[in-house]
Amino acid sequence: MARVVVDVMLKPEILDPQGQAILGACDRLGFEGISDVRQGKRFEMEVDGEVDDARLEELRQLAATVLANPVIEDFELRVE
Amino acid sequence: MARVVVDVMLKPEILDPQGQAILGACDRLGFEGISDVRQGKRFEMEVDGEVDDARLEELRQLAATVLANPVIEDFELRVE
Repeated sequence: MARVVVDVMLKPEILDPQGQAILGACDRLGFEGISDVRQGKRFEMEVDGEVDDARLEELRQLAATVLANPVIEDFELRVE
Repeated sequence: MARVVVDVMLKPEILDPQGQAILGACDRLGFEGISDVRQGKRFEMEVDGEVDDARLEELRQLAATVLANPVIEDFELRVE
């Protein structure tokens, strides 16, 4: 059993209104010195058995199909 | 300038219908050997200056106020 974590973030060139809203809230609440916030998603998958390179490639395929939209999002997989 | 990453996940005892929907989709699409999926959020903050312990504590306060709901969510901060 392994835990695979997938981090999904909007590509840098895509506007992130949620992040901008959070940045505005930080300002209003008096938290200073924060120049940018971006919001993304984090997935934790419990995967049976060993995660070798072939299995990781399969999971990358899964992430690109189900978890992320590769047109506007970048994602990263790692085994934890 | 430092990047602080905040990972927010539902507490283990809180049901995660989004994760369950993804698990169902994996099954239907023929991705096998995945026994659980949980969905959370990831925030990337660009913070001015050095992040020392006091500053990190301030950011932890920010995360607990603006980014996470500590009643149902756990969160972790790290400097990247």
